[in-house]
Amino acid sequence: MSSRIHHPGLKAKVMSAAEAAAFIQPGTTVGMSGFTGSGYPKAVPMALAERIKAAHARGEDFRINLHTGASTSTEMDGALAEADGVALRTPFNTDPTMRARINAGETEYVDTHLSHLAQTVWEGFYGPMHTAVVEVSAIRENGRLVPSSSVGNNKSWLDLADQVILEVNSWQSEDLDGLHDVYYETALPPHRKPVGVTHPADRIGVTDFGVDPAKVVAVVETHAPDRNSAFKPADADSVAIAQHLVEFFEHEVAQGRYDERLLPLQSGVGNVANAVMAELVKSRFHGLTAFTEVVQDGMLDALDSGTLSMASCTAFSLSTEAAERFNSHVNQYRDKLIIRTQEISNHPELVRRLGILAMNGMLEADLYGNVNSTHLMGTKMMNGLGGSGDFARNAFTSFFLTPSVAKNGAISCIVPMVSHVDHTEHDVHVLVTEQGLADLRGLSPKQRARVVIDKCAHPDYREQLRDYFDRAMRGSDGLHTPHLLGESLSWHQRFLETGTMRQG
Amino acid sequence: MSSRIHHPGLKAKVMSAAEAAAFIQPGTTVGMSGFTGSGYPKAVPMALAERIKAAHARGEDFRINLHTGASTSTEMDGALAEADGVALRTPFNTDPTMRARINAGETEYVDTHLSHLAQTVWEGFYGPMHTAVVEVSAIRENGRLVPSSSVGNNKSWLDLADQVILEVNSWQSEDLDGLHDVYYETALPPHRKPVGVTHPADRIGVTDFGVDPAKVVAVVETHAPDRNSAFKPADADSVAIAQHLVEFFEHEVAQGRYDERLLPLQSGVGNVANAVMAELVKSRFHGLTAFTEVVQDGMLDALDSGTLSMASCTAFSLSTEAAERFNSHVNQYRDKLIIRTQEISNHPELVRRLGILAMNGMLEADLYGNVNSTHLMGTKMMNGLGGSGDFARNAFTSFFLTPSVAKNGAISCIVPMVSHVDHTEHDVHVLVTEQGLADLRGLSPKQRARVVIDKCAHPDYREQLRDYFDRAMRGSDGLHTPHLLGESLSWHQRFLETGTMRQG
Repeated sequence: MSSRIHHPGLKAKVMSAAEAAAFIQPGTTVGMSGFTGSGYPKAVPMALAERIKAAHARGEDFRINLHTGASTSTEMDGALAEADGVALRTPFNTDPTMRARINAGETEYVDTHLSHLAQTVWEGFYGPMHTAVVEVSAIRENGRLVPSSSVGNNKSWLDLADQVILEVNSWQSEDLDGLHDVYYETALPPHRKPVGVTHPADRIGVTDFGVDPAKVVAVVETHAPDRNSAFKPADADSVAIAQHLVEFFEHEVAQGRYDERLLPLQSGVGNVANAVMAELVKSRFHGLTAFTEVVQDGMLDALDSGTLSMASCTAFSLSTEAAERFNSHVNQYRDKLIIRTQEISNHPELVRRLGILAMNGMLEADLYGNVNSTHLMGTKMMNGLGGSGDFARNAFTSFFLTPSVAKNGAISCIVPMVSHVDHTEHDVHVLVTEQGLADLRGLSPKQRARVVIDKCAHPDYREQLRDYFDRAMRGSDGLHTPHLLGESLSWHQRFLETGTMRQG
Repeated sequence: MSSRIHHPGLKAKVMSAAEAAAFIQPGTTVGMSGFTGSGYPKAVPMALAERIKAAHARGEDFRINLHTGASTSTEMDGALAEADGVALRTPFNTDPTMRARINAGETEYVDTHLSHLAQTVWEGFYGPMHTAVVEVSAIRENGRLVPSSSVGNNKSWLDLADQVILEVNSWQSEDLDGLHDVYYETALPPHRKPVGVTHPADRIGVTDFGVDPAKVVAVVETHAPDRNSAFKPADADSVAIAQHLVEFFEHEVAQGRYDERLLPLQSGVGNVANAVMAELVKSRFHGLTAFTEVVQDGMLDALDSGTLSMASCTAFSLSTEAAERFNSHVNQYRDKLIIRTQEISNHPELVRRLGILAMNGMLEADLYGNVNSTHLMGTKMMNGLGGSGDFARNAFTSFFLTPSVAKNGAISCIVPMVSHVDHTEHDVHVLVTEQGLADLRGLSPKQRARVVIDKCAHPDYREQLRDYFDRAMRGSDGLHTPHLLGESLSWHQRFLETGTMRQG
């Protein structure tokens, strides 16, 4: 395994994860690698969790502030949360143990646009970053670092941190080298320049990270797979959502608003996103591009079939099977994949310029096109908004996708008023459920309400929504966005009290 | 007056406003000039309103869909609304008669990010644009058009419309010629290029509009002032808000996060924005820049004093006195002002690159940093979000400003949950009221709540807010963003029922 470490000075710093974790001090801020379960450190976080537990057993305080790229895994967020080792977490999490800490009020969580975190840490109000813990796939003879399966914010953490701990993971394919595009020109204003990407396939950076070897206090060798993002076969609802989308693409091509190659696709993470790619593979569309955060199983299939000619991303989120397939054939993707820093993969400048078709999941939408991506019943954090805001605000067309009901129909995902807003009515162009697609572009709030009820609501809730809207049209103080404020959040309250949003 | 029309072919098309208005047909979409009460057509809209009234008197339907740059005046929005002549209005309005139509449900209103409207009309889902009605300050011999006191979306309307009506307003200073910067490279994707502005003073376009003379069906001569945006002397609350801001700037300079020249300022419209400029003029800050939508009286003073070295904008909003002063000394501002298309003045690419300090007013904010800029009690449209979203989402620091109470204290502008969200918790860095400044950067929702109550809430409402938050901390389903959903909008409901948000 040590063949991956080609710099003698850094090779001399190889030690155990426990020894490395001893460099991390209580109360400090740590920037770790990791994005959608890929490229996170596999050993040091667990060793740190043990160190924290031992400190707690001795009655000592030991918690850190933790920045990453996005979500990691049970070996990292899970272990650290289980040890109650995280005081503040940014910018994204999907781990259930960490989620429980956040929703119990035990860990503070700052849910942040993924393109924004690095610049805000550079800006300085989070305070100094004490340690960076970054997984890489190799260390070059000159000390430069070959990234692993996600790039995320690693460049910034390596530059900002006082000390650096590297994990060199020999499970990652050596052939990843050359796929990355690390951009080093993101200065703080007033020193910023245009980001020179005019096509998703444009490369603007270098293939590796620089780090001051003197800052590296430890190198840990690992051989461990990324999180298995289990691939579920598409259910009927996901397929229906995907079919509505592909039909809409055809319609827009027929109208002359998209050309045959569409525009670069951004696709969120999960089952529905995989189904969208599967439907595209079945469709006549060919030679498309993706400018997105994450490559999932479905996108890998679309690259294989030629449906996608290439994809720009910052990370992978693959099933075990797809990861094995990818790792043993990385060279086949050499001209088809670019793995960028997340500031660039999600950059609003590029999203607007390239004219992205942005497809993201959501928890709920309301009659007027406001979208809640994050908060269960308005108060509990599910995961976070991730990159959805980076993409939706500046997209050529922004799509938000969800099945029309959840919890076996006890929750309507179309509600009178969302219980939390992550995407405002101004940023939401198209809503899609398995029931249909609501094209809200150019519609006023009341026009949107009628389309959303007709096209997207589940039949079980359609009348209940119409009844609310009709009564709001009569009883609302103003008729721009009609609401009965005493009742607008009552569906959520009813769910909390009775276990269903259905009226008795 | 005819000396302003130097193109013989277009001179031959001079006619009365009534004759010109006859070209506008019922049910069509019209793009008019106008932004914050400057550069809107002064004669044709009133003539059109008369034409509409006459049609209505004959029992005929006659309404148009109306796009502009932003707000206009009683001579335009007021006259057309009074005639019930507008079916659909975008993207912004401040006229009280039009507002009443919108809130009565009689005119559909699509409240739109000001940098987004042109591209969405180009995209095509609003349907074809039948007529453009654009005020200019002169027509060159070669037929090119010298813009007047706002540029807004005029370039797009002139290019998109089937037919064009020009108003040549000789009240506008001839010296405006040369101040404009009209950018013609905003293609639809995939043909977009980087927008080459790296400093607010960079010019990237031309000083005039092109129009196909064959499309021009009428030229109307006017001599009429822009809307008088009456300057009110700053009240104590506005001064206090401005002082908190300037103190924060000093603090950030001391922390090394801003340099002595700060970063380019964006400043909303109104009394508070004028007060901010006045406080900056009194401060030690010098040689700053503005990258903003609108130049108001306060910004003109700041240019005069050298507090600002230059300002980039898309429009003016001046008092009668300031407009006279400006018009008679335009040449003094030749190197200090650039008037751009609103796609560029508000471009997210440039806002992020330049690192704007974005200061915008709001109606209310909630404990968790969500901001309502538009909806009175959640249902009635006040004006619209304007450019606030273009600037806030991508700003280096985003500030939202309001007095802590309205309606003589009957309304608290800090509430448990805002009744409508225009700016999400993810986009709001700093809240400022006359009570103080809440720096929310890097804080979790619960941490924000404590700072917002302590720093921004009016003393009369502070305990009521603390009581809500404390009870939510005990009774909320989740503790990431604690809420009591049955009560979170009760302050607004109480105001509607009793005339005050105060608890009995």
